[in-house]
Amino acid sequence: MIRGGILITGTEVLTGIITDKNGPWLSEQMRASGIQPAQITVVGDRPEDLLAGLESMKAQGLDLIVTSGGLGPTADDLTAEVVGRFQQREMALDEALEERIAEILRSLSARWPNLDMESVRAANRKQAVIPTGSTVLEPVGTAPGLLVGPRDGDQGPLVLVLPGPPRELKPMWRTALATEPLSALVADAPAFERRMIRIFGIPESELAASLRSIEETGLDLSQLEVTTCLRRGEIEIATSFAPAGEGAYQALLEQIRERHGALIFSEDERTIDELVAGLLQGSTVAVAESCTGGLLCTRLTDLPGASDYVLGGVVSYSNAVKEAALGVPSGMLAEHGAVSEPVAVAMAEGVRSSLGSEMGVGITGIAGPGGGTDEKPVGLVWIAVLQDGKQLVRSVVIPGGRADIRDRSTTIALHLMRRLMLGESD
Amino acid sequence: MIRGGILITGTEVLTGIITDKNGPWLSEQMRASGIQPAQITVVGDRPEDLLAGLESMKAQGLDLIVTSGGLGPTADDLTAEVVGRFQQREMALDEALEERIAEILRSLSARWPNLDMESVRAANRKQAVIPTGSTVLEPVGTAPGLLVGPRDGDQGPLVLVLPGPPRELKPMWRTALATEPLSALVADAPAFERRMIRIFGIPESELAASLRSIEETGLDLSQLEVTTCLRRGEIEIATSFAPAGEGAYQALLEQIRERHGALIFSEDERTIDELVAGLLQGSTVAVAESCTGGLLCTRLTDLPGASDYVLGGVVSYSNAVKEAALGVPSGMLAEHGAVSEPVAVAMAEGVRSSLGSEMGVGITGIAGPGGGTDEKPVGLVWIAVLQDGKQLVRSVVIPGGRADIRDRSTTIALHLMRRLMLGESD
Repeated sequence: MIRGGILITGTEVLTGIITDKNGPWLSEQMRASGIQPAQITVVGDRPEDLLAGLESMKAQGLDLIVTSGGLGPTADDLTAEVVGRFQQREMALDEALEERIAEILRSLSARWPNLDMESVRAANRKQAVIPTGSTVLEPVGTAPGLLVGPRDGDQGPLVLVLPGPPRELKPMWRTALATEPLSALVADAPAFERRMIRIFGIPESELAASLRSIEETGLDLSQLEVTTCLRRGEIEIATSFAPAGEGAYQALLEQIRERHGALIFSEDERTIDELVAGLLQGSTVAVAESCTGGLLCTRLTDLPGASDYVLGGVVSYSNAVKEAALGVPSGMLAEHGAVSEPVAVAMAEGVRSSLGSEMGVGITGIAGPGGGTDEKPVGLVWIAVLQDGKQLVRSVVIPGGRADIRDRSTTIALHLMRRLMLGESD
Repeated sequence: MIRGGILITGTEVLTGIITDKNGPWLSEQMRASGIQPAQITVVGDRPEDLLAGLESMKAQGLDLIVTSGGLGPTADDLTAEVVGRFQQREMALDEALEERIAEILRSLSARWPNLDMESVRAANRKQAVIPTGSTVLEPVGTAPGLLVGPRDGDQGPLVLVLPGPPRELKPMWRTALATEPLSALVADAPAFERRMIRIFGIPESELAASLRSIEETGLDLSQLEVTTCLRRGEIEIATSFAPAGEGAYQALLEQIRERHGALIFSEDERTIDELVAGLLQGSTVAVAESCTGGLLCTRLTDLPGASDYVLGGVVSYSNAVKEAALGVPSGMLAEHGAVSEPVAVAMAEGVRSSLGSEMGVGITGIAGPGGGTDEKPVGLVWIAVLQDGKQLVRSVVIPGGRADIRDRSTTIALHLMRRLMLGESD
């Protein structure tokens, strides 16, 4: 098995100011190329921490290390030099590369006429100083990528040095795969499959019990790497395997279907958002939201093409808006309270009739932290979904903080929408 | 100096299925407690990779390792056991802890009436098997946290074992800080200060030029660690320093104020969302959104207490809703198109009058990927903010993808809201 490590550099990533997206992307790409990702490590712009990261991955026997970042023109961009030291290679100016970078800078200068080209070029000359014997990957921005192997006769990982900006890193990864050193490394690696099963409506511990009892039936899961994860109120079962594991995966899928069939909503990569979007094609929906404040409408319109079926929504944060914009009777609000079954239904009916959609959704609840009572605690949410004279109405008490309660409410609403469109109703 | 490492476990994080938020959060918390974060490493649920991560951090001489994840009831949750092996401590069932976990499960079972409690309890018994000599941190969910030091007389890092879900991890970190082993470790550490300056309205390259020219004036920045980052359309300048650096920081702040004073909107930790919430106290707002699909209303209601000033909103994704719910004249839509200055103003006026708020906000734009023309490209957004007969109306063309365009639009709207409330108007 060929194993890889990912080393992300940048103090702004380490300190949480910006979120690393390259690590997970590279991990996924490695897997697709048959390289098993072993770790992602983030270090700041300190050369000794970067070197320690490289040495630690070497000590674990990894075959490939991909670095991201630290290739810019400023003084704290040190990756090429540190990788050179790690592979015990001298640094040298590649004059042809310097000229190609200068050419890129000349074309940039046309767009930024006020740049001081002399100082820019001096700063960028640094980017053409590379470890001897490197394979150069042509710049997408101004920074070249590098493939730096151990010196002839030495053992150790191949290091692929990529720039940090994703729009430079991604195409350069693909270029790197076609180069001799990397294509030779992955030539014999089996591509890994990744499959996803998504379940809604059981706690993670029940799935854990199922997986144990599946193993007890004698099914050999050793060819599969199964991970379960609770996300936005759903359980995701991700399974990775080499092509030879296909049979074992199908047997596992069969067993999970037998135990949780009705609650499995996706066996491909599609999310509940995508499934609902698919079902809504040719129809129209409008949503009335209270505690979620517009989050369900935001989720529905996250997907391109949502204007084909989302007419819009009303966020009725105040009772006055529930009455005026949605026609919820003030007597109903007084008698049952804003967080109640009849109000959720009236909101769904109101938004459907005022916006003229086929489906109507109403959500009303207490997101907290204030506003809860013994009878109606923080986390209580009523959700109503109506279409064609049919409806599904549910209440839940969602644990966690304000953000969890709002987020989970929209997940439940999407599942109710899906179930109603598939024919289930109260 | 006391240095710490963060070890995130979970194949679902390593493979990019879920995004790690604990690493950056813990990094920030360490820094605030005077511990210099040295690295964040993500490994999958393989015990050998987790152990290699621990050993590598020990080899670098780190004083504290914080792990996140791998404390659940399933078989791939192995962190406690691996940390026990790393610290050479036997595993043993803590019966009192087991009973406390069982108590939590009994209260959970009320919400999931169909659970097989016996198998759930068996799965959770595992969570009470911990390394001998650990300090137990009481469960927030069902998993306890652990502080596991080296055996008496051995050298090595203290390991703090935390659960993966952020709503369990965060309070438990605070509990851990108060325990003897961790409070002893940080007792002598100088607390690092972190200060944040937020600027809206200049490109990052202009700020970079300012920082260079500030250094050229002779200001010594060596005591400060300054990182700049473009986030949600704003520039964040984060500066970390030991208490002795306070003077240098004040001098830097003075210089930045001199150059960008009018565009600095926050010099404390407050975000634009919090500033707008503060200004809206005692007033009311309603928003009409098209391309953002409810995201501005969601952002406004993310903060607790938003019901004091947010009346609600209308998402008018279709033109019919713009007419019916917001009173935008059909002639105006036909003449100027839905993405135009008069329609943005009419949406803001319409939502203010129909919901009865003091401030009205209208956003209409083209989020893409489809729907752009030469005259009105993808990314064109018109935003209108009205209050007390005054208004600010702006158009922008936002680069990037659909999510960027939607997100950035809401940031701009919040800044226009703030400026109007501070007295600026067209």
